[in-house]
Amino acid sequence: MIRLKRSERVAALLKILSDNPNQIFTLNYFSELFGAAKSTISEDVGTAKGVVEQMSLGSIETIPGASGGVKYKPLASNEKSIEFLKMLCEELNDYTRLIPGKFLYMADIICDPTVAARVGEIFATKFMDKKANYVVTIETKGITVALMTARALNIPLVIVRRDSKVTEGSTISINYVSGSSHRIQTMSISKRSLPPGSKVLIIDDFMKAGGTAKGLLDLMAEFNSEVVGIGVLISTDEPEEKMVGDYYSLLKLKQVDELSKQIIIVPSI
Amino acid sequence: MIRLKRSERVAALLKILSDNPNQIFTLNYFSELFGAAKSTISEDVGTAKGVVEQMSLGSIETIPGASGGVKYKPLASNEKSIEFLKMLCEELNDYTRLIPGKFLYMADIICDPTVAARVGEIFATKFMDKKANYVVTIETKGITVALMTARALNIPLVIVRRDSKVTEGSTISINYVSGSSHRIQTMSISKRSLPPGSKVLIIDDFMKAGGTAKGLLDLMAEFNSEVVGIGVLISTDEPEEKMVGDYYSLLKLKQVDELSKQIIIVPSI
Repeated sequence: MIRLKRSERVAALLKILSDNPNQIFTLNYFSELFGAAKSTISEDVGTAKGVVEQMSLGSIETIPGASGGVKYKPLASNEKSIEFLKMLCEELNDYTRLIPGKFLYMADIICDPTVAARVGEIFATKFMDKKANYVVTIETKGITVALMTARALNIPLVIVRRDSKVTEGSTISINYVSGSSHRIQTMSISKRSLPPGSKVLIIDDFMKAGGTAKGLLDLMAEFNSEVVGIGVLISTDEPEEKMVGDYYSLLKLKQVDELSKQIIIVPSI
Repeated sequence: MIRLKRSERVAALLKILSDNPNQIFTLNYFSELFGAAKSTISEDVGTAKGVVEQMSLGSIETIPGASGGVKYKPLASNEKSIEFLKMLCEELNDYTRLIPGKFLYMADIICDPTVAARVGEIFATKFMDKKANYVVTIETKGITVALMTARALNIPLVIVRRDSKVTEGSTISINYVSGSSHRIQTMSISKRSLPPGSKVLIIDDFMKAGGTAKGLLDLMAEFNSEVVGIGVLISTDEPEEKMVGDYYSLLKLKQVDELSKQIIIVPSI
């Protein structure tokens, strides 16, 4: 048993909660960890709650009842999110990122763990009330932001493969038509990766026509899973009509002009 | 400016440091954020330092000098790491995970963000002093633990592809021989993903004969990059002789027996 002072207890408690977002800890857990009365822990929780609220560092929720306790919810404030997305746009609106075929080099940005974590928190904030059981993404580039979304929501990630790999066991595969290239492609997923009837949140890095997202919707239907949301980091203005209806996009790619060497991406939340 | 009490300040300071591992914050930053004197912040840092040490929640380091400040280092204690790895083994040593060809289904485990984060912290603890500039992994399954390692070290992740994708721009590709299947395969990486002369840490989920790791070493040589470490979550006992010399493996796969339906994986740190 470790005896801490009040200020130390509050700090340790907040760190433990914050390291494990959306995970419920009982007051008893902290009471035993710190060797303090439950009423003391209750006060400490109140203090920690006040700190994160005042500093816009998320929120702490108390869950009453027998299975109750306390949990930390990462909440990205709208103001901070937009400020962060504007900064991302500045980095993205750099014409040296242009790759022939109007593609955009952005691996360095989405593979920056700090960026991925921030994006994950924004998605988690948006979709927290949807009570998803799984985050689903398709390899490869969406994985970093999808994993960080899953971390913020405290739910597992499922990675859909573009080929059926031998190390995944029995798989379910579907063919889908890429919305922009009109090519038939395959995506597959291990049969045991999702229990039927799951609620899933689809997260990806990029949406053009929405063919991949539509494919993921169809694949989820094979599992009788309910898709409770689709989040993408960047979607393109064109085509305006996507192959999926409802999606939440953080950034909008307005224009890519190879001639004038211009990229225009703006926040869209 | 937000006025916080001492216990609130210490908690907020620790949360901010802990959310941004291995990132240096100046005392001035906190001084302005909290509207408190630098000497007060200094005391708060001392308190936070004491908390994480007493609770084995990592460490806080003070960097003296003009470019100095304070940073949080996630440190997984050996005791906690082994306890965690034993728990992982219990989950992995379940013969229903066996897939024909002596493969092991473990996507659910490495795609659990909490597990990936813990594994990342263990790798980060092991390799922190190597001063790597990049974590490098190869798609797909190693990405989750590699990203979390990169997060704990506060350095970017680079994902090597098994095909050269059109959205990556100019790429460098190499052929390599898979150590166990003896098939020739390709791996490629965007030319702009790594500046020449970088120090890289290779992280992957699984090593059998080490052919993939050897391929990554060769690919890094093309960039004149120095590989300062190789970390894998699981390595197999057989073949004993790997195609790479020095590697750090958290778990050892001793035996997979399809007949007796037995898997034996043990911690190897």
